[in-house]
Amino acid sequence: MVKLSNKISDTVIRRMPVYHRCLEELILKGIKRISSQDLSEITGFSASQIRQDLNNFGGFGQQGYGYNTDELKNQIDLILGVNKSYNTVLIGAGRLGSAIARYKGFRKSGFNIKALFDLKKLPPLEGIPVLAMDKLKDFIKNNNVQVAIITVPKSQAETVLHDVVDADIRGIWNFSPIDLKAPKGIIVENIRLNDSLLILSYYMKNMEAKE
Amino acid sequence: MVKLSNKISDTVIRRMPVYHRCLEELILKGIKRISSQDLSEITGFSASQIRQDLNNFGGFGQQGYGYNTDELKNQIDLILGVNKSYNTVLIGAGRLGSAIARYKGFRKSGFNIKALFDLKKLPPLEGIPVLAMDKLKDFIKNNNVQVAIITVPKSQAETVLHDVVDADIRGIWNFSPIDLKAPKGIIVENIRLNDSLLILSYYMKNMEAKE
Repeated sequence: MVKLSNKISDTVIRRMPVYHRCLEELILKGIKRISSQDLSEITGFSASQIRQDLNNFGGFGQQGYGYNTDELKNQIDLILGVNKSYNTVLIGAGRLGSAIARYKGFRKSGFNIKALFDLKKLPPLEGIPVLAMDKLKDFIKNNNVQVAIITVPKSQAETVLHDVVDADIRGIWNFSPIDLKAPKGIIVENIRLNDSLLILSYYMKNMEAKE
Repeated sequence: MVKLSNKISDTVIRRMPVYHRCLEELILKGIKRISSQDLSEITGFSASQIRQDLNNFGGFGQQGYGYNTDELKNQIDLILGVNKSYNTVLIGAGRLGSAIARYKGFRKSGFNIKALFDLKKLPPLEGIPVLAMDKLKDFIKNNNVQVAIITVPKSQAETVLHDVVDADIRGIWNFSPIDLKAPKGIIVENIRLNDSLLILSYYMKNMEAKE
């Protein structure tokens, strides 16, 4: 049984995809069960951390047996909602945008891209139409679109945010390099390429300093 | 003065690019000084959190005055090592790889892409040559390359990791969807698109459950 508590911290949630990925690998290798110790080896999280994380959702392991990989993956699928599906649009069909639009993980995770939007007139991308920006709001409203992927440059990001919020979007996957302040009730998940680079830069520098 | 302590947690480090981004914006708007309260409004971190974070590196604010935006940005530049420069290669010049290679943030953050590598024969990308995979190790060794950006599919990721580690790479920016286990002393910074999507999925689902 999946018990959903609102008290589960974001830190715990952010470890769930790691378990998910790890279990997919194990299942692919034909491994049927795994102990928290072995999961610890693979993930780098401590065995007690793992047990505690999974207990948050009801605790699926059995002492002395460990976890059944298929069952645990199914439970985590349910927790993460990968069985759900969301109508999705992508705004900004430039280089990054079109690379992202072709990303195979979308369908697997339930995000179905219905249309791309761009300032430029562009041909369809693998069968998905690229529409004019002034069609965005109506498209979202008329097609029950819940998720917007924003891959526009900084200069356009605020306008796009305004439009998708206005059209009652529920979730945003943001690749633009600014802080999008969405109203309460809208989920924003950011991919901050530049932050990640700066962090790499920091650790590179400090590694050198230690040598 | 920049005081570098080894005890600074990864959580603090991961907030530094947020301050950096925020200060860039303020400077662009001509704002010369800012209080921790105002920084708190912009970043969403508490004012005391901000003061504590910046104190880790020596504390640059003055009570009653706040922070001088130019000075603070320069200090953070130094902390993050954005004044440093690293010879970089990108492996996997497919859609995502070439979008990433064109990313303008690289030069700004000191990562200079010297060559791309791919299994396919491809023309140069904005003047940067695309070389054959079997040239990778020698190129890294002969050109003092310190950083590798990995944008290959899952199936090639382990081989590429092995090659770059063998050639004494110091840092890896990993976009491939597997857990790259690099030996100690090599910095790995991961961009996990799929994890991020699963987290968006989780929050979307739980928002619905609450309604």
